[in-house]
Parts: sequence; C-alpha cells; structure tokens
Amino acid sequence: MDDSLQKLADIVDGKLIGTSDTLIRGVANIAAATEGDITFLVNEKFLSHLAGTKASAVILKAQYADECPVSAIVVDDPYLSYAKIATFLTREKNIPTGIHPTAVVSDTAVVDATAWVGPNVVIEDGAVINAGVRLEGNCYIGKRVIIGKDTQVKANVAVYYGTEIGERCLFHCGAVIGSDGFGLANDNGSWFKIPQLGNVIIANDVEIGANSAIDRGAIDNTIIHDGVKIDNLVHIAHNVEIGEHTALAACVGIAGSTKIGKHCTAGGGAAITGHIEIADNVHLGGMAMVTKAIKEAGAYSSGIPAEPASQWRKNVVRFRQFEKMEKRIKLLENELKSIKGSKIE
Amino acid sequence: MDDSLQKLADIVDGKLIGTSDTLIRGVANIAAATEGDITFLVNEKFLSHLAGTKASAVILKAQYADECPVSAIVVDDPYLSYAKIATFLTREKNIPTGIHPTAVVSDTAVVDATAWVGPNVVIEDGAVINAGVRLEGNCYIGKRVIIGKDTQVKANVAVYYGTEIGERCLFHCGAVIGSDGFGLANDNGSWFKIPQLGNVIIANDVEIGANSAIDRGAIDNTIIHDGVKIDNLVHIAHNVEIGEHTALAACVGIAGSTKIGKHCTAGGGAAITGHIEIADNVHLGGMAMVTKAIKEAGAYSSGIPAEPASQWRKNVVRFRQFEKMEKRIKLLENELKSIKGSKIE
Amino acid sequence: MDDSLQKLADIVDGKLIGTSDTLIRGVANIAAATEGDITFLVNEKFLSHLAGTKASAVILKAQYADECPVSAIVVDDPYLSYAKIATFLTREKNIPTGIHPTAVVSDTAVVDATAWVGPNVVIEDGAVINAGVRLEGNCYIGKRVIIGKDTQVKANVAVYYGTEIGERCLFHCGAVIGSDGFGLANDNGSWFKIPQLGNVIIANDVEIGANSAIDRGAIDNTIIHDGVKIDNLVHIAHNVEIGEHTALAACVGIAGSTKIGKHCTAGGGAAITGHIEIADNVHLGGMAMVTKAIKEAGAYSSGIPAEPASQWRKNVVRFRQFEKMEKRIKLLENELKSIKGSKIE
Repeated sequence: MDDSLQKLADIVDGKLIGTSDTLIRGVANIAAATEGDITFLVNEKFLSHLAGTKASAVILKAQYADECPVSAIVVDDPYLSYAKIATFLTREKNIPTGIHPTAVVSDTAVVDATAWVGPNVVIEDGAVINAGVRLEGNCYIGKRVIIGKDTQVKANVAVYYGTEIGERCLFHCGAVIGSDGFGLANDNGSWFKIPQLGNVIIANDVEIGANSAIDRGAIDNTIIHDGVKIDNLVHIAHNVEIGEHTALAACVGIAGSTKIGKHCTAGGGAAITGHIEIADNVHLGGMAMVTKAIKEAGAYSSGIPAEPASQWRKNVVRFRQFEKMEKRIKLLENELKSIKGSKIE
Repeated sequence: MDDSLQKLADIVDGKLIGTSDTLIRGVANIAAATEGDITFLVNEKFLSHLAGTKASAVILKAQYADECPVSAIVVDDPYLSYAKIATFLTREKNIPTGIHPTAVVSDTAVVDATAWVGPNVVIEDGAVINAGVRLEGNCYIGKRVIIGKDTQVKANVAVYYGTEIGERCLFHCGAVIGSDGFGLANDNGSWFKIPQLGNVIIANDVEIGANSAIDRGAIDNTIIHDGVKIDNLVHIAHNVEIGEHTALAACVGIAGSTKIGKHCTAGGGAAITGHIEIADNVHLGGMAMVTKAIKEAGAYSSGIPAEPASQWRKNVVRFRQFEKMEKRIKLLENELKSIKGSKIE
Repeated sequence: MDDSLQKLADIVDGKLIGTSDTLIRGVANIAAATEGDITFLVNEKFLSHLAGTKASAVILKAQYADECPVSAIVVDDPYLSYAKIATFLTREKNIPTGIHPTAVVSDTAVVDATAWVGPNVVIEDGAVINAGVRLEGNCYIGKRVIIGKDTQVKANVAVYYGTEIGERCLFHCGAVIGSDGFGLANDNGSWFKIPQLGNVIIANDVEIGANSAIDRGAIDNTIIHDGVKIDNLVHIAHNVEIGEHTALAACVGIAGSTKIGKHCTAGGGAAITGHIEIADNVHLGGMAMVTKAIKEAGAYSSGIPAEPASQWRKNVVRFRQFEKMEKRIKLLENELKSIKGSKIE
C-alpha cells in the first residue's frame, strides 16, 4: 500500500516539484535512501549528499530546491514535515481488536469492542478500557483504572488502581504508573509509612518512556497535563504537576509536590527538588541540579563538564580552597591599601 | 465500615476534644475536607485554613486546639498520627487468598493457604510463600525464594533464585531483586563474567520502589536490614549492606561492597562509590557524589545548583582557570612581599 | 557432580601444587571457605587469612604459593582464573528445553527444539528463537525479533519488534530493548512524535542489566557491539553505537546518536550528551558529565565530591563569586603594576 508523492505533499501543505504520481514506499536517510524512499534535508551538513541521493523524493526548504536532483516537497520545516509524512507512511494496518484468550479480565471491567487486550494482560475490577486502546502482552491494569481512546500501552507496563489516563497516550514497556509516593513519618527512629491515597491523572497525548515511574499522590493527585513527553527511566514523585507540552529527557528525577510549568524541557539526568515551582518555558540543561524555584523563563544549567582526571583532581582541591583563596585576596587588598596609604602620607 | 473518632484517638493515644461517636469515613487535606473526613494540621502555613475547615475532625498540636472549629485529636506529632489514623481508615477489607488458576506454581513450591498468588504469577521450584503474602499479577518468583509473612509484592516484580525476604515488606511494580552483580574480569581486552553466587537477604518492613534493582552478592550476600525504605529507580550493587531504618530517595545508586549505616538518608540521585563505609546517621543531599568513606554522622552535600545558562558557562570557564588564578595570587603575594621588603631596607 | 582439582587447574592452565584428585564442590571467600571449597587470593589485604584458610585449595600467584597451607593452583591472574573456575563449577545441569504450555507463541514464530520458552512468555509473529536460547517467565518478544544461540533472557524482559540479538547474550529482568527513541518535532508549541523506524542490533556476548532501556534508532539502527557489558538502570538513546568490550556501570545515560569507542568504561551515573564521539579506551569516572567529544584515550572525570553541608554551602556561594574574584585579582595586579611603575620613575 504505497502512497503517491502528491498525497504526501498534501499532508504537509508542501509544494510538490516533480512527478506527483511517483509511489513512495518508505523513508531513509539522504545517503542510504534508494528508489521508492522519501528522505529529508534538515541539517546543512548533509547538503553534500543532496546531489547524489538515490531517493525518489526529498523534503526540503525552498532554498535547496534548485539543487535537488529528484522530486521535492518544499516546506518551511522539513523536520516536522518528515515526521508527519513518515507517520503516515508507516501507519499500521490490520490493528488487532478483541481480548486474547489468555488475558485475565475482571467481570466488572468494561472493555470496548474495538480495543485490543493482548496475551496474559491482567485487568482488575471496575477498570474501563475505551475504544481503540491497545494493551500489549503482560500488562497489569489495576482496579478502576480508566484508559482513554486510542491509548497504547506496550508490554509489561503496570498501572496501579485508580489511575486516569487520557486519549492517544503511549506508554512504553516497563513503565509503572501509580506506585506509592515515598512518604514516611519518623516514629522513634523507624519509618512509619504515610498511606498514599491520591491518584495519578494523565491527560491526552502523553508519552511515557521505558521503565519510567510515576507515583500516585499522597492525598491529592499527581497530574500530567496534555502533550507532556517523558523519556526512559524518569522518576516523577507524588503530587508533582507537569504543565502542557513539557518534555523530560531520560533519567530526570522530580521530587514530591513540585510543579513544572508549560512548554518546559529538561535535559537528561536533570534533578529537581521537591515543593518548588518552575515557571513556563524553562529549559534545563543535562544533569542540572535545581534546588529552588525558577520564576523566569529561560535556560538554566549546572555541573562542571568532564576533564582529564589529573586536571579534575587538582580543580577539586582548589574548589575546597575557595575560602582560603578568598582570604588571601582580602589580605592582599588590605596590604595594598596600606602601602598606598603610606605613600600618600 | 466507618470508624468513630474515639477509636481513632485511641490508636494514637490522642486527646479527643469534641464528639467521640462522630463517624469518620476518609481523609482529605484541610482545605478540601468535607463532612465525614478527618484532616490534619502539620505545617503552620495551612493554619489559615483551620477556621474554615469543613472536616469533621482535625489532628493537631495542643497549641492550635483552641482555634479548631470542629472536633480535634490533640497529639504531639500530627504527621505521624495522621499516618497511623489514615492507615487504619484505609485498611483493606476482603483481602484475597488462594492461587489464581492462571498462576504457574511449581509442585515443589510451598504456598500458605492464607497467601494470595495473582494471575499469571510464576513461582519456581522450592520457593516458600508464607502466610498473608500477596503476589500481584505477572510476578516472577525464582527457585528457593523465601517470602516472609504479610509481605506484598506488586505486579511485574521479579525475584531471582535464592533471595530471602522478611515479613511485612512491600515491593512496588517493576522492582528486580537478585539480578547478577556487575562483576567482570579483564581477559585480554574482553570481559569474562564473574559468576554471582551470593544472594540477597532482605529483613522485615523493607519497602522497595518501582523499577528499583538490587543485585545479588558475588560470593557473600547483599543485605538490606530491618525497616529500610527505598524509593523508585534505585540501584543497589552486589554485596552492599544497608543498615536499619535507612531511607534512600529515588534514583540513588550505590556501588558494590559499600556498607551504609543505620538511620541514614540519601536525597534523590545521590551516588555512592564502592568499597566504602558510611557511618550511622549520615544524611546525604540530593545528587551528592560520595567518593570516600564518611566516618562522622551529619549532613553532607555536593553539586552546584543550576543558574542561568549564560552565567553557568562563565563559571565553568573560571573553574578551569583555578590553577592559573592560584598562580596569579601567589605572584601578587610575592611581589607585595618584595615591595614591603624593599621599603624596610 | 564435584570436579577434581586437576580438572580445575587444567581449565586455567594453572600449575597445581598438591593433591590432584581432591574433589571441589563450591567456591567461597578465603575466610569463610570450608572443606570442599576452592577460594582465591587476589587482594593482598586478605593475605593474613591465607595461613588459616579451611578451603581445600587456593587460586593464587606464584609469590604466595609457599605460604599456602593447602593445595594451590598457581596462575598469573587469580581473579580471572577464579572467574573461569567458578563458572565451570557452577555450570547448570538439567537445562530445560521446550515451550511451557502457558507460553503464547505465534504460529509464524520459529523456536528451536533446544530452546526453552518459559511460562507466560509471549512470542509474536515471525520471531526466531535459536538453539539453546532460554526465555524466562513473562518475557515479551515482539514481531520478527531474532535471538541468537545460547542467549539467556531473564523474567519480565521486553524486546520490541525487529530487534536482532546475537549469541551468548544475557539480559536481566526488566530490561527493555527497542523502545522508541525520544524524537520530537515542535509543532506550534506542541510536540509531534518522530516515528522511530530503526532497530536495535545487539552483537554477541552482550550483557544488559536489570531495568536498563535501549531505544531503537530513528531511521538507522542503535548498535551494541560484541562483548559490551551494561549494568542496571542504564539508558541508551536512539542511534547510539557502543564499541566492542566497552563496559557501562549502573545509572549511566547516553543521549542520541553518540558513538562510544571500544574498550571504554563509564562509572556509575556518568551522563554523555548526544551527537558526539568518544574515542577508544576512554575511562569515565562516576557521575562524569560529558558535554563534548573526547578524542584522546585516557581517564576523564567531573563533579565535586560531597563534603559537610555547611562547608558545601559556603563553597557554592564562592563558586557564584568567581567572576567577582577574577575582577579583584585583576585590580590587584593593576594596582601593583602602577605601584612598581611609580617606584621606577
């Protein structure tokens, strides 16, 4: 089921230069593409490959159209247009529906006839699985979980009781949603567990990466708003709230009750302390250590990049001598002042 | 099955002010609580909500009792008392027992009649599942694993062969216990795997968070003592030993053969090197980088908090110039000394 | 099935001193070993235990042979020899084969008769499971996955469609292979998902730790070469390539399209940015923050080790005052120059 170049151009409102009925079969990078492939030119460093590309068509900006030896779809944002065209070209056909005979579905759960419940999936009492939802093998869906239309849950995902999930979400393998928050009260030296009675509320179009974990709220809920994208191995603690269209790269950790704004991004390994607020449009660098509220939009970073270990060891020692260094400078300043003073006299 | 206020006050040895037979249904925060709820006042910043609370009762300190418009349970530690009361109020009724027909239980495994083995759980040869244990859907329990009374294992947890687990533990979804330690011997440039022949021993009242991983020992055992609490995505390497009532927040990593004391805490993302000892009552800040033994109780931290990226870039450059700075100060000191010297002459 | 000391010595080309037909049953550390155990002496700090060891034999270097009170296997590298002997001694007998009746295997999947497919394993269409492969309980093997000979996949592992895995690999519980890379295009403030169309290619003798995640490529493949060893909770992003015999400790994160050389090592929690190249034989310290290419072999580190929190707070303040400090030094230098200048005149 190949698609015509015209059809693909229409999807992205692009200007087609070339043969509109050329059939496109797949996508490839500009150097590896062969006949039947569409490719794209986003980064100027690949411009040298354009003249020799074997692709049937290239998605590119107007400024490169003249240099394109094959058909072209001219757009303002080739990367976004590529994403849309590739999504269309690789859309799945023959999507399964129904409940696999090995799935264990509670009598009180409701599963839409157009949903797919894969092998060995467990669905507990009162859960609601809406139209077009796909649950892959070995998922666990707890009591009273609600999963909105067309959400995909990959294999081995676990969703605790009471979690509410919106439409068109995508949860990757091993993700855990709704685990207990880390709430502990000190009881004469031992820890007494604070029961975690809130839920996790996930809005629409949220993606959660492999082996990430999102805790349920302590009393109120943990809330992930529309369009939030979360990469692998990310930790979201209890009562966190993440604003619309914020994206968190892998290994990010967010401590309890922190509220992240809209349209934020966090680089891999960034860690954000609890009980603070991060404004909209804040962009954190990788491994950024955020210890207090950020009230202004903008880019924030921390951490000292790696250097040869011998050099690093010296700098660590110096860092420890800051205070002494400060004192030596102060002393120099005072002595100099006294020298200059004595000259004036 | 609601509980009387008197009953709740008794649980925490609290002084009841108000109507002892008021029935309490649930818990809520002080602003959201309605009739039938009990709430609590821990943090003074919520004091302004006390006068207007719609709760049926408030758990609070004596100093606020006069201001409470409804019934009160007066205690020294409202947070701990809240935890105890909420735990009691939300205790589960109708706890399941038995073995789900889809579970795969070895003939040589022993499962107590009061335990619950959920759907698709796999229990291998020689495992022992004691009274009141609950294994949720899709768990994997390896050969000869022993699980003590009343321990709860949530969905999709994997426990390797030989692991010994105490009573009243709680393991969250996706946790892995007993995976091989990362032991490698260099064999002419390639890695030869050191067989990991020890076990993991987990004592009583231990909680392990979602997607955390605890490796088995290389020859001896990895040991987690009574009352240890471990959050999500924590890594515990082979032969680590963690002392009683220590709590590790999310994303902490502990390298091999390190011994952590009792009553310690580690903030999120803290990383501790291998083969060292951490004393009792040590408290590590978030992202603390621990590279050597800590012998004294106390608080330890590292890391430079995030700052605007433009400022950060300058400071990174300066950090690299430490050595030069040091030399410039030294030169200034020497010159000043020679100036002062010349004046004396 | 015990093995003779001679047999064990032969495995490592060691020189046997003592009784060749002594039967060895197991391994233990030098202090805990009893009759029937073999032990080893690698670290000089355990030398004091040699004279009193109760082991039946010790693996050690020639220089300690005279002090050994029992049989000895003399080798150049006792740690590596221990690994080889322990692997042999603890080899599994009675390895299962066949397909457990609860496994769900597609009609179009091919499973070798000598492979083991455990309970509740799901194998999708077109997958190929080669000779000697072992899939433990609750694994998920996606469409067209190929798993090479003698690879072991522990419980609850998920492998996405199209992944190619070599021979003798070992994947620990909860590992996820082939999840979507974190590719997003900004579409007027919301994120449009870039379809992830590449695969993951894993060569021979690769070990992947518990709950680690390896993303599939965006267009081209993510590639893990021969002999790579990956610890727990490691994140490998899309299109990363990792060279032969590189070892990554727990909690390492590698961002997209980065290429790591051969024979590298990364300490726990190291984070490597995207789109860079790391040379062969590079060794990164724990928590190293790698923000640009490393072209020379060698050791690299970053991060300031933890210190008492009160001291740390002061140093953080100083770090922020770098720029001011620099200016004060500059001023001192200028003033001194003018003083010296004035003296010359």
